[in-house]
Amino acid sequence: MHRAILLGLLSFALLPGCSVSEEPLRGTSQDPLPSWSDGPTKQAMTRFVATLTDPNSSGYVAPGKRIAVFDNDGTLWAEQPLYFQLLFALDRVRATASQHPEWREQQPFKAILEGDQEALGHMSEHDIVQIVMATHAGMTVDEFGGHVADWLATARHPRFDQPFTRMAYQPMLELLEYLRANEFKTFIVSGGGIDFMRVFTEDVYGIPPERVVGSVGLTRFELRDGEAVLVKLPEIEFVDDKEGKPVGIGRFIGRRPIAAFGNSDGDLAMLQYTAAGDGPSFMALVHHDDADREWAYDRDSSIGRLDQALDEARERGWTVISMKNDWKRVFPFEP
Amino acid sequence: MHRAILLGLLSFALLPGCSVSEEPLRGTSQDPLPSWSDGPTKQAMTRFVATLTDPNSSGYVAPGKRIAVFDNDGTLWAEQPLYFQLLFALDRVRATASQHPEWREQQPFKAILEGDQEALGHMSEHDIVQIVMATHAGMTVDEFGGHVADWLATARHPRFDQPFTRMAYQPMLELLEYLRANEFKTFIVSGGGIDFMRVFTEDVYGIPPERVVGSVGLTRFELRDGEAVLVKLPEIEFVDDKEGKPVGIGRFIGRRPIAAFGNSDGDLAMLQYTAAGDGPSFMALVHHDDADREWAYDRDSSIGRLDQALDEARERGWTVISMKNDWKRVFPFEP
Repeated sequence: MHRAILLGLLSFALLPGCSVSEEPLRGTSQDPLPSWSDGPTKQAMTRFVATLTDPNSSGYVAPGKRIAVFDNDGTLWAEQPLYFQLLFALDRVRATASQHPEWREQQPFKAILEGDQEALGHMSEHDIVQIVMATHAGMTVDEFGGHVADWLATARHPRFDQPFTRMAYQPMLELLEYLRANEFKTFIVSGGGIDFMRVFTEDVYGIPPERVVGSVGLTRFELRDGEAVLVKLPEIEFVDDKEGKPVGIGRFIGRRPIAAFGNSDGDLAMLQYTAAGDGPSFMALVHHDDADREWAYDRDSSIGRLDQALDEARERGWTVISMKNDWKRVFPFEP
Repeated sequence: MHRAILLGLLSFALLPGCSVSEEPLRGTSQDPLPSWSDGPTKQAMTRFVATLTDPNSSGYVAPGKRIAVFDNDGTLWAEQPLYFQLLFALDRVRATASQHPEWREQQPFKAILEGDQEALGHMSEHDIVQIVMATHAGMTVDEFGGHVADWLATARHPRFDQPFTRMAYQPMLELLEYLRANEFKTFIVSGGGIDFMRVFTEDVYGIPPERVVGSVGLTRFELRDGEAVLVKLPEIEFVDDKEGKPVGIGRFIGRRPIAAFGNSDGDLAMLQYTAAGDGPSFMALVHHDDADREWAYDRDSSIGRLDQALDEARERGWTVISMKNDWKRVFPFEP
């Protein structure tokens, strides 16, 4: 992924911040999905919900079994020009560099600190892991959460100059709300770090920490001066991506979902697992086809690559959500 | 643990089954905890709940943060003469022996099949793990759940001749209900196997699968004839006991509990972690001190050993629940 992703990084670093404009008030429409265009996609979703909530339907599903799972990056919020968690990690390297004089001579940190675009363009997977470990481990879970919260409160997206928490997709926020109003339990199932996401998912998506499934780093229980804490260790324990997603669902949720939303090949196994249930099920991919309002990418992208899953969705009649055609607005801050 | 635990096993195997008597109807008392004796324990619990639910109290806790965690074996249901999950495993060995002719010559299976009390009394930890692996792995999660459900529907507790699902403690069932009525989220945090517990926790405790934290075996996502399944592998991935309990809480729940209930030294770290929170917190141990109605054991027991945690509870003023004095009834089937 790395060359294409990282090449542009430095250009963002110096963009001036600006204050956030409030979005206009929404009308109190009866439509629970006002940001979705009328059409087959919206119809398919509302028809699915109408069927499974109808006690007289053969497709009725009891509330406790209405499990809906959502990928996060690229499905609930944007993931360009780089996963936001990696932008956080790069900012943490810069913010803590004075405590790590050794980084001045040590790659990949040297390149980040010097803004060495050439070197950043050649970062390996191993470099990325090193950056994440250096910025995510060696502190308690609570301390880490504090760093994430501070960053979310101050950092701005390089293209849209908005706080990252406002880079969530307005139609998906409405969909989460709509499903919960129909007694769905909504979960995130993401390759992102679980402790990173849990800082903001309740405020941004209405999804509490215990309904977030993600990649997990090892932690250790310690009594520090008699105080019981969990310390984050520099070791990845579980990667909640690709075949890991159904495994994560089995471990954290313990029930097969009836609805699954993703946007990349990393979500394919989760959609396959959802589709294999006994009753009605709904599988959908968010297709990034709107370069004007968001980004346009699929088969050749280094981030959020959507290739095999797109083929399988079309073969099996899963829903492909066109950001361009199905969404009247993309972000909450749009006029 | 093993000699003392397993010595009595064979004597149970031949007890005749009998039909389950229905418990008498409860009166519709205003008291949400009718099976708890009036006294300091009940008062401490209701005072704690009154404080944190009072918006005018300095100890007020928002509903989303009202996390209560419960150990299962010995805290929510009985654990004698042997963890019920091990009784299930032994029954599975007997039930599937015809498919495993090699077990006739292979320990520890030979001893189980022959009822060799001497050999059973010498089973090692390794033998136990072998038994669990042979009966819990090599099938899909759904198939395993089916075996557990079948067993729960037919097996009887050797002493009380009741289905195991009726070996839950009536006062704890009332407590779970009482806490949820006060907008607590109730979780199980148990050393038991997560896929075993999830079969019955919703029916028995009102705790859905996603609120069960337990020990986890590795699983693998597979497409079997195009059908997406999770296969249980013969490898333990995470042991949710002792220091693993706060780690499991951090991983699955992502928030520090404000109330924790256990019954053994395996719960001590979970209670310490709960006690170290910022706001009000409630830590309690169920003390098995009623040999007539249940069992009496603590410091010297091979199962549910309560020693260091009992000392720490008394030092720090945590609640010690006396089954004998604090519970008017123990099991739902008592007259």
